[in-house]
Amino acid sequence: MKQWLPSFSFLYQKRPRTRRRSINLSPPVILASGFLGLIVLGTLLLKLPFATEQPITWLESLFTATSAVTVTGLVVVDTGATFSGFGLSVITLLIQAGGLGFMTFAVVAAISLGGQVGLKQQMLAKEVMQQTSLGSIKKTAFAVVTLALVAEAIAIVVMTVYWTAEKGFVNALLESVFYAVSAFNSAGFVLTPNGLVDYQAERTITLLISVLFVIGGLGFSVINNIYEKRRWNRFSVYSKAILIATLLINAVAMAILWLLESGNPATIGNMPWYDQAVNAWFQAVTPRSAGFNTVDTGAMTEASAVFTLLLMFIGGGSMSTAGGIKLGTFIILLLATYTFLRRREAVTLGDRTIPQDLVMKALAVTIVYLGLIFAGIFALMILNSLPFIDIAFEVLSASATVGLSRGITAEVTDSSQLILIFLMFAGRLGPLTLGYFVATPKKRHVRYPDTDIQVG
Amino acid sequence: MKQWLPSFSFLYQKRPRTRRRSINLSPPVILASGFLGLIVLGTLLLKLPFATEQPITWLESLFTATSAVTVTGLVVVDTGATFSGFGLSVITLLIQAGGLGFMTFAVVAAISLGGQVGLKQQMLAKEVMQQTSLGSIKKTAFAVVTLALVAEAIAIVVMTVYWTAEKGFVNALLESVFYAVSAFNSAGFVLTPNGLVDYQAERTITLLISVLFVIGGLGFSVINNIYEKRRWNRFSVYSKAILIATLLINAVAMAILWLLESGNPATIGNMPWYDQAVNAWFQAVTPRSAGFNTVDTGAMTEASAVFTLLLMFIGGGSMSTAGGIKLGTFIILLLATYTFLRRREAVTLGDRTIPQDLVMKALAVTIVYLGLIFAGIFALMILNSLPFIDIAFEVLSASATVGLSRGITAEVTDSSQLILIFLMFAGRLGPLTLGYFVATPKKRHVRYPDTDIQVG
Ligand SMILES: [K+]
Ligand SMILES: [K+]
Repeated sequence: MKQWLPSFSFLYQKRPRTRRRSINLSPPVILASGFLGLIVLGTLLLKLPFATEQPITWLESLFTATSAVTVTGLVVVDTGATFSGFGLSVITLLIQAGGLGFMTFAVVAAISLGGQVGLKQQMLAKEVMQQTSLGSIKKTAFAVVTLALVAEAIAIVVMTVYWTAEKGFVNALLESVFYAVSAFNSAGFVLTPNGLVDYQAERTITLLISVLFVIGGLGFSVINNIYEKRRWNRFSVYSKAILIATLLINAVAMAILWLLESGNPATIGNMPWYDQAVNAWFQAVTPRSAGFNTVDTGAMTEASAVFTLLLMFIGGGSMSTAGGIKLGTFIILLLATYTFLRRREAVTLGDRTIPQDLVMKALAVTIVYLGLIFAGIFALMILNSLPFIDIAFEVLSASATVGLSRGITAEVTDSSQLILIFLMFAGRLGPLTLGYFVATPKKRHVRYPDTDIQVG
Repeated sequence: MKQWLPSFSFLYQKRPRTRRRSINLSPPVILASGFLGLIVLGTLLLKLPFATEQPITWLESLFTATSAVTVTGLVVVDTGATFSGFGLSVITLLIQAGGLGFMTFAVVAAISLGGQVGLKQQMLAKEVMQQTSLGSIKKTAFAVVTLALVAEAIAIVVMTVYWTAEKGFVNALLESVFYAVSAFNSAGFVLTPNGLVDYQAERTITLLISVLFVIGGLGFSVINNIYEKRRWNRFSVYSKAILIATLLINAVAMAILWLLESGNPATIGNMPWYDQAVNAWFQAVTPRSAGFNTVDTGAMTEASAVFTLLLMFIGGGSMSTAGGIKLGTFIILLLATYTFLRRREAVTLGDRTIPQDLVMKALAVTIVYLGLIFAGIFALMILNSLPFIDIAFEVLSASATVGLSRGITAEVTDSSQLILIFLMFAGRLGPLTLGYFVATPKKRHVRYPDTDIQVG
């Protein structure tokens, strides 16, 4: 674990050099400990008598805290009706700490790892982050926080203005803060019992919220790249790939969901075409992985639900507030398969080669994720007598920290809720943790002779 | 495509050399054409008036022929009640031609490809096949056919003796031939309307059938290896891996299904413990990918159905009568993930290295398979109002040429049945076709500089 030390020394640079050995923690351990600490703190705070309007159980408190810190948005109680102003403030802070903290950590770690794995890797990190030295880490972390606060501030102003006439200034402001933080961090927490269904015809609110979480879900390196380079042809290969993939997936998903739901009066069937468009857009972009919903998720056709499973699995960009296997992983899986089918040697994207290491990482992330999801679905199928589609949907939603539900979150057994809590935690931290492995020195072993395993 | 020629020349060696250019077909094209031809022929024969007791539609005829040739076993009509003696003979021959033909082709192709891709690959093929020269191809093909006929003959003798008292000698013999061919080729076709449920207490029959399809599903190279080497420590790495994995998966699956179904009176709940054991064994080994059933598949708990999905996805050995991504592919996926998590450089098994090419092949096979299955499920969800579990089960069953069904095969729309026909065909030929790509010369391109794609 010692290899982590050098670049993370800025975190504790005031300690005397002789003390260093005692804090030999790897970034994944630091991150997991931080998240666990936040969840425990959140659970305790939300269980305080004055945090709720009516008492909640420890399990409900733990579930809510985990859902907030992992920015998932699955709920076992009606957030708006259950928690007091204090409770809601705690939830808002947990979301901001969990979402923004994770993003900052991912960005900082990506830069600092650049210095540990040789010049080549350093140059790659540089390309992604547009960083030229480890000295600028603090500046970058500052930039991440600034991006979040500026985006949230703009949204708060717009929403407050929009809502003041209806709710009064103070309420409008407070709700705006809650929704802006929840949206930018892809948390999916809302104050009404049925998601954002009440706002399905309020295009200002739904479009604003969707823009917030789409930005939050792109990932910092892409946004930073856009901000610094301004012009398309100067963007990095990664930024271009993510932007194109985001556009493509969102457009295809919107078309498919619009088509599948246009005849469904329980969702968008009875709306005028422009509201159908806005809500189809919203339901297309929310599964990767904001988790807000402007129509009743449980009333959507099961074909739409199956398609949504795929979107949840894919997730958003790396170094973002989103979950899932991540868009970059999905792109590499497709590229690697295409490369194989075309009998080419190296996986390429644009005029760049994707190192074999990253392909192996994409494979590992995907297999671990699939294993986690399968185990979760199997366990919940054993523990509950509920339809397969609802359970598959719930498990995918927790694992990819999406927060969409077909309505069974509070219905499943206590042990099932504990499993969902574990899935939210593992789903949030897993991919990043695995990501570190690619950047650390490999163990070199004796090179064995090749063998042949039949695979087709 | 020219690179396929040399080693396949034995197939048409009597033609003059100057004609060769006109038959420039790659093995996958030859295989697909052969299968298509068999299916068309089978469809025409089964549609003949005297092939059936009552008329069937063209779609039913096409579905039955495809299911037989791809050794899947999904049925849209009751095989025993619908077809005449002539019809049943046609089905038996289609199964034998499809199952045995595929296995022989896979084995022959594996050997002959050994001569095309350089010494290293040739040595690998040698290791798997225990072959020392291309001249022994005919001998090996002969060995494959001999294995099948001997195994089937033994089963026919045992079953005929067992059934003669009950059904009379001629009927016993005819039924034995049908079941032996259906079992060794993992076809899953039966003569009774409810699978082998009538035989669930007849341990001689069910154990014999399960032994036949387990042998057929191991793959020729493993069986040949056992036959030639006799002792465990002389077996190839691949044979050892397949045998251990088969034992492990079957044991775990048997334990899980026994546990999940022991309280289910609709399946094994009311049986004495030894019948529970036999039927749990049978239901554990049949999904990879024989497709026979001794209990009502639709009456199994949904948790068992979900677990069965995984078994169907994995499938059996390569060069076997089984489908799925194949056991070798599954092993490589797990090993590659483990290697990544342990930060090791090369994927190893025992004291051998698994070449990067094979890992990429496993990845490609898996992604293509997942894509096929997802598209199939999504399409059938759109076309039918049936539970997600039943449709997922049906699509997996068709894609992995398993043949188990929760009872909806004849219920789904005609277009859905056409999709299932396509899935059986693609599921049977796809992995082997992709497998060829690994053995053919790579296109060499300009080596681009590396780029970094975030995947975690
Ligand atoms: K979320
Ligand atoms: K089968």
